[in-house]
Amino acid sequence: MAGVVVQNIERVPLPVIDGLATCGVATVHEAQGRTGLLAPHMRPIYPGARIAGSAVTISAPPGDNWMVHVAIEQLKEGDIIVLAPTSPCTDGYFGDLLATSAQARGCRGLIIDAGVRDVRDLKEMNFPVWSKAVHAQGTIKATLGSVNIPVVCASALVNAGDVIVADDDGVCVVPRASAEVVLEKAQAREANEEAKRQRLAAGQLGLDIYDMRGTLAEMGLRYV
Amino acid sequence: MAGVVVQNIERVPLPVIDGLATCGVATVHEAQGRTGLLAPHMRPIYPGARIAGSAVTISAPPGDNWMVHVAIEQLKEGDIIVLAPTSPCTDGYFGDLLATSAQARGCRGLIIDAGVRDVRDLKEMNFPVWSKAVHAQGTIKATLGSVNIPVVCASALVNAGDVIVADDDGVCVVPRASAEVVLEKAQAREANEEAKRQRLAAGQLGLDIYDMRGTLAEMGLRYV
Amino acid sequence: MAGVVVQNIERVPLPVIDGLATCGVATVHEAQGRTGLLAPHMRPIYPGARIAGSAVTISAPPGDNWMVHVAIEQLKEGDIIVLAPTSPCTDGYFGDLLATSAQARGCRGLIIDAGVRDVRDLKEMNFPVWSKAVHAQGTIKATLGSVNIPVVCASALVNAGDVIVADDDGVCVVPRASAEVVLEKAQAREANEEAKRQRLAAGQLGLDIYDMRGTLAEMGLRYV
Amino acid sequence: MAGVVVQNIERVPLPVIDGLATCGVATVHEAQGRTGLLAPHMRPIYPGARIAGSAVTISAPPGDNWMVHVAIEQLKEGDIIVLAPTSPCTDGYFGDLLATSAQARGCRGLIIDAGVRDVRDLKEMNFPVWSKAVHAQGTIKATLGSVNIPVVCASALVNAGDVIVADDDGVCVVPRASAEVVLEKAQAREANEEAKRQRLAAGQLGLDIYDMRGTLAEMGLRYV
Amino acid sequence: MAGVVVQNIERVPLPVIDGLATCGVATVHEAQGRTGLLAPHMRPIYPGARIAGSAVTISAPPGDNWMVHVAIEQLKEGDIIVLAPTSPCTDGYFGDLLATSAQARGCRGLIIDAGVRDVRDLKEMNFPVWSKAVHAQGTIKATLGSVNIPVVCASALVNAGDVIVADDDGVCVVPRASAEVVLEKAQAREANEEAKRQRLAAGQLGLDIYDMRGTLAEMGLRYV
Amino acid sequence: MAGVVVQNIERVPLPVIDGLATCGVATVHEAQGRTGLLAPHMRPIYPGARIAGSAVTISAPPGDNWMVHVAIEQLKEGDIIVLAPTSPCTDGYFGDLLATSAQARGCRGLIIDAGVRDVRDLKEMNFPVWSKAVHAQGTIKATLGSVNIPVVCASALVNAGDVIVADDDGVCVVPRASAEVVLEKAQAREANEEAKRQRLAAGQLGLDIYDMRGTLAEMGLRYV
Repeated sequence: MAGVVVQNIERVPLPVIDGLATCGVATVHEAQGRTGLLAPHMRPIYPGARIAGSAVTISAPPGDNWMVHVAIEQLKEGDIIVLAPTSPCTDGYFGDLLATSAQARGCRGLIIDAGVRDVRDLKEMNFPVWSKAVHAQGTIKATLGSVNIPVVCASALVNAGDVIVADDDGVCVVPRASAEVVLEKAQAREANEEAKRQRLAAGQLGLDIYDMRGTLAEMGLRYV
Repeated sequence: MAGVVVQNIERVPLPVIDGLATCGVATVHEAQGRTGLLAPHMRPIYPGARIAGSAVTISAPPGDNWMVHVAIEQLKEGDIIVLAPTSPCTDGYFGDLLATSAQARGCRGLIIDAGVRDVRDLKEMNFPVWSKAVHAQGTIKATLGSVNIPVVCASALVNAGDVIVADDDGVCVVPRASAEVVLEKAQAREANEEAKRQRLAAGQLGLDIYDMRGTLAEMGLRYV
Repeated sequence: MAGVVVQNIERVPLPVIDGLATCGVATVHEAQGRTGLLAPHMRPIYPGARIAGSAVTISAPPGDNWMVHVAIEQLKEGDIIVLAPTSPCTDGYFGDLLATSAQARGCRGLIIDAGVRDVRDLKEMNFPVWSKAVHAQGTIKATLGSVNIPVVCASALVNAGDVIVADDDGVCVVPRASAEVVLEKAQAREANEEAKRQRLAAGQLGLDIYDMRGTLAEMGLRYV
Repeated sequence: MAGVVVQNIERVPLPVIDGLATCGVATVHEAQGRTGLLAPHMRPIYPGARIAGSAVTISAPPGDNWMVHVAIEQLKEGDIIVLAPTSPCTDGYFGDLLATSAQARGCRGLIIDAGVRDVRDLKEMNFPVWSKAVHAQGTIKATLGSVNIPVVCASALVNAGDVIVADDDGVCVVPRASAEVVLEKAQAREANEEAKRQRLAAGQLGLDIYDMRGTLAEMGLRYV
Repeated sequence: MAGVVVQNIERVPLPVIDGLATCGVATVHEAQGRTGLLAPHMRPIYPGARIAGSAVTISAPPGDNWMVHVAIEQLKEGDIIVLAPTSPCTDGYFGDLLATSAQARGCRGLIIDAGVRDVRDLKEMNFPVWSKAVHAQGTIKATLGSVNIPVVCASALVNAGDVIVADDDGVCVVPRASAEVVLEKAQAREANEEAKRQRLAAGQLGLDIYDMRGTLAEMGLRYV
Repeated sequence: MAGVVVQNIERVPLPVIDGLATCGVATVHEAQGRTGLLAPHMRPIYPGARIAGSAVTISAPPGDNWMVHVAIEQLKEGDIIVLAPTSPCTDGYFGDLLATSAQARGCRGLIIDAGVRDVRDLKEMNFPVWSKAVHAQGTIKATLGSVNIPVVCASALVNAGDVIVADDDGVCVVPRASAEVVLEKAQAREANEEAKRQRLAAGQLGLDIYDMRGTLAEMGLRYV
């Protein structure tokens, strides 16, 4: 089953991708109907990064990072690597050398449902990673995996070319076909939120802004 | 059982609360006989915050943040929201809009045994949160919970009006009735610690300062 | 079985230790044949620290930090305390007072498969800790443990006098007898990596640098 | 704070307790408004037991089972011991000797948010336990705890004399004051369920029995 | 996104399904190239069950089991319900009443990445469940989900009509289109294994049967 | 470092081993000063087994079971295989074929800090396993590990030839050199416990048998 590299994947135009990055994970997740989030164990190795990019996916055996080298050749400007191990693993598949190589090919970051190492160097390089673990454990190059096949990464289905959005809130995947529509909805949501934010900052209550008091009373909420 | 909002809760005077914040979680916990700590999975979303406040409690269904809106109306200057879901949940009940609203009412932070989102914005707003997870997962407004009833949050019993102390070490709850006494004990402990710190910094050993050598020998400690 | 303090442990010369600190955890781990890592749940309480030192080991009962005082007397310049509880525990065995005392004796940091507290103070003191948890929970002084006996800490065997290397990637233990050889290998590895880094940064692929294409094809990798 | 034994606790009459045992955890939990469940990590050491009893509570230090001996003296026919450690612990506080002693005093079982051992013997003795772990780790007798004070056990508040119901679904606590009312509601619920069960067994759908189709359609459910 | 019920799903013929059940999870997983396993936290509520069936999938909000009722109408003889919550949840979505209804429609069991309750009754009914938790926590009926859309359940992608195989080793999903081929391979594998089993039982070594000694020696294995 | 098979290990005489099996894990653990327990996540795949044997140790890469074949050749009557992966792993290294082979060589069971599969068959074969997970995930044969070197398995140091004792309470390791002494102490402990059991069964209290009342009162225990 393993051993396939899909070379020509379709990508979303960079302006759409960059727009999604600006909206951020929470807004994009809401804009696409509260779908697409990776599991909350996926945490950034340092705070503050906020990226989006086209997914180049890797399905790799536990403790074997050979396919990362294969995947790097497939990277284009604006891509993000998404690595899903074929069984649960915390080994450090990726470090500063691979990051140097990926960054040289235009890669914006890594999403890995396993471990990463050299995190101090990665931070200095400004190469963000969202991972399940930080672990220096070395990996081998012995078994084939696949590149750019659909993978389930941290409970989310990711197809090659889907848009990955990642920030301090975690990681969200946007199917390629709906990226443009999701961006529009996300931007509309942001505009809408700004108005609300000002009213809330002025001390108005959500109970009034969203007109909730009646429904709450009907459902039986009692003030004592 | 759910569906109750207790409106008039008693609070500890702010000077006492602020005194407890200055002492910090570890000292306050010791001062009240090593009680009151929330479970260690409750971690700050950014380092460095150190707050105390009166608990406004929320019991909320999993994935439903409706009661947060209800609770915000009950907030007074110096309060801290304490949210306990009725079953284990990591959804993001709270983000920057709710924080804006809460902060406008004088709220100092949030303690939530579930998820939080927009953590980058919350940090910029200086609105600290101690949570079980960071997760962008959206929540609904469909089911009643309660406000200001006793809750068990991260293994600790919290009554509305109890004092919450939170810093990088975690979260501690001080029962309202004992807050003043605990503050006194905590301050006495701090004074006492300062003297010890200077002796230890000068190279004296705890073995000597606390006169432990005799007891250790009696219990059979052998130096080889 | 407990109740023993081994006083005269052999240590590795400080220049070797400091050399290992400079190489860092991932490189040292690789240099000794991918061995010696502590489990990935051992995380630094603040980012950026990078230390090495001779292990002074503590075997302590759950929730009892008495032996830390005993161990501090055994510390010499350049040591690191390694504490393994005798059963799983997250209590805060160690805080700023003990750190003051340890630092006064030349201690460089703490590795503890349990909890730590006063982490804000520890950061200000520049006293790094790698731990399983941050927890303010106080501990007692009631039962003997041992100092400088072999311990299993976070799944790794540590003998007193072994070299501990710790940075943002985690913690690695180097057996005392092999420290010098491991340092040589680690430095050779670093030199070798630098050349690779420059080629990768220039856009060359690992597939070519490491000559992987042939083997991959033989194993059946298909490009589609 | 610790060091108190409350001797005269009020209990619910045994017929009410035994009625709650017959209803079982899920029904009792529903009957009291979906409250009272202990966290799902509390599992029986062997399947098939179904008990209820009056809680005799123990607050004990980590790894210290001294208070179990103290609590056993307080047991009456039909009681269940509920042990909450003061910090997270998996040690084996309880084994066949303590079970022999407790059983001789009329105790029906143990609920412990920590470890238990001798589980094969306990099964043979027909002494059921719900615990967080099975662990042979021995404990000490060095520090005071308390008996029959309110405790938080596995995320639930338990007062001495509350009714504990436990079966293969887990553990539920019923406040003493409401036990009788909860029993009535639970029995009503059971009667009601029996009728539904027969209709469902006959192939009728919940969609029809509960008349859900209209609401689902209104909310927008689409059949494709 | 939610709110869809796909009614006419294609299924694999029952003889193929039943053949896969006989082969069991480990063999089927191997036969399809070591793919398709659900995460190992999915455990049977009682030992000994061994089933296969066509997946009727449910995507449900946390703590809301409304869609189970909707899904039951879609069940046919030989189906298995597969429920994936939209965010992590341990609530008890399913108990004996729903099992009665599902069983009346020909359902063979439930795979749920959340909680289940009434497990004693389910065992007596011979209705097997593989779940993440056993928890009596009740759920509500307030929000739409979907039925028979693709879901990620316990890290595996499941499409409606795929074959689910479940036994004491866990759960495996076989894509509908490849079920027949996988069955052939699985049966071939079983036949092959039987011969090996007899040789191994007779005391022959895998080292010899699989002719491994030469390769091991070449790779440098040293006997000391 | 890997790639070594130690062939001639010393073993404890079978009568000593069998004596330890009869005493069981909890008693043996106590008899050797509360040491030697493996972590409590090591659970039996079926209840009721109670074994002891000489450890044949395996250090194996994650997801690679090649060394199991190598180890089986080293087995003698009364041995138990102890497998520790070199990084955290839940893959199913071991199933019914390997068990058939091991059993044919006199092996009594397996201790594995990873996954196992074919658990139904293993139960039928009466081949007990204590493991971290049950997972059907297949493994490869690509990388060398070692046999009969010291390993850390589930937080315990195990040397080849040490005695492993395992039952429903978990797993305990007894160093080879002390096995005979530990057996004597364990048997003495058992004899001593029998007398206590009878007194406790007759209703006497531990408080009186162990003469605890005075010490408790001195420490300040208050009855209210």
